[in-house]
Amino acid sequence: MRKITAGLIIIGDEILSGRTLDSNSNFIAKTLINYGIDLGEIRIISDNSSIIIKTVLKFHKKFTYVFTTGGIGPTHDDITSLSIAKAFKREYLINNNALKILKDYYPNKEINEGRKKMAKMPKGVKLILNPITAAPGFQLKNVFVLPGVPKIMQSMFIEVVKKLNKNKPKKIITIKTNLYESIMAKTLSIIQNKYKSCSIGSYPFFNFEKKSGGVNIVISSSDKKKLSLVFKEITKMISLLGGKILKV
Amino acid sequence: MRKITAGLIIIGDEILSGRTLDSNSNFIAKTLINYGIDLGEIRIISDNSSIIIKTVLKFHKKFTYVFTTGGIGPTHDDITSLSIAKAFKREYLINNNALKILKDYYPNKEINEGRKKMAKMPKGVKLILNPITAAPGFQLKNVFVLPGVPKIMQSMFIEVVKKLNKNKPKKIITIKTNLYESIMAKTLSIIQNKYKSCSIGSYPFFNFEKKSGGVNIVISSSDKKKLSLVFKEITKMISLLGGKILKV
Repeated sequence: MRKITAGLIIIGDEILSGRTLDSNSNFIAKTLINYGIDLGEIRIISDNSSIIIKTVLKFHKKFTYVFTTGGIGPTHDDITSLSIAKAFKREYLINNNALKILKDYYPNKEINEGRKKMAKMPKGVKLILNPITAAPGFQLKNVFVLPGVPKIMQSMFIEVVKKLNKNKPKKIITIKTNLYESIMAKTLSIIQNKYKSCSIGSYPFFNFEKKSGGVNIVISSSDKKKLSLVFKEITKMISLLGGKILKV
Repeated sequence: MRKITAGLIIIGDEILSGRTLDSNSNFIAKTLINYGIDLGEIRIISDNSSIIIKTVLKFHKKFTYVFTTGGIGPTHDDITSLSIAKAFKREYLINNNALKILKDYYPNKEINEGRKKMAKMPKGVKLILNPITAAPGFQLKNVFVLPGVPKIMQSMFIEVVKKLNKNKPKKIITIKTNLYESIMAKTLSIIQNKYKSCSIGSYPFFNFEKKSGGVNIVISSSDKKKLSLVFKEITKMISLLGGKILKV
């Protein structure tokens, strides 16, 4: 784990019940790695205030940045904003800038109770603008509070991530081979021990119909020279073990 | 949260880096709810021994059942089994039954170091058979240790879950309406407060191209009578607010 890290909290009973497939984790993970930020952990938790509070405070201390998705809509089960106000002992009240944004968005500036709730936030937050459906998210300390609907979350996340501090991006190479994991395990471990600044992961794949398979070896490092040495050693290993490189 | 609960730990840097889309969570979540077991939390953690140990011990105490996926293959980055041995202060050694299964599976009973590693487990575990690629998982106390490759994990999980204790299954109804969340938020909250034994979730959907949207209202309970009362109140609410039911 490098200097600039992130933790992600997905809030939603709909994920834990399997009703909704969580695609936000993968989008955020991919975007963070492209921007040079290491995602340290993802927690998927239920719409439960005390669990939200505990998890947010834990991550707030542990990671450089914390992102939450879900639970900031207008209904009774949307309790993320209130829970975060409680976590940081802030008042929970109408944010006037958020209210103005919402009023401007709706026809005849019609603001019912539900819509008003979407402007309720902890005191003193920085708004995160929502280019799609207006209702903003917010930043409080190192915690970024985003909605759960993927397209909306994505449009907001992309704007947020640009402004964050980053590590030197890692270079990543994937080597696909037809060798099985168990055959290369020993050599791979020797190479890993020799190059501690590179990370070597091995991910088996199987094609059950063709009764074939192999491994994707993923090597990554911010040190390009070391990475190319590791690459050479791995390709040599594959050839010595009688394997083929299917794709790089 | 009801009596019989579960926690899920997904172990793998490949998920945190966004390289692999985690489909195991959703499969396990769906299967558990069908079997009447409440999934309380999912944590996606990196291939790091001290984090694995801490998370497993935490979940071991918190939930009736704990499932882990990933990190039980033959390579150096597969450290789940060793970490779980450490967590429960058990010796980490060759399981003779597992070794026999592996020997029988490979042509000429050829067992290299990597394959042998897949038979190394904490002492005194119960094996979980793998009908696809032989290498078994194991159960230690309330922790079930499974591989990360989805098809293999699924075939093993299905066998495990059948034998667990279960809650009375919940009945779940989804009501799809063209009303927006903010319009129904207040009434929905009143209904939720009236029927505490039912859970009412509301999940907005948007069709950005058609510029339309609405809400999926998901109601669930193990009390069928209460659930049908909630259903009636919600359909009445939709009609009073001028909305349509698109699908039940």
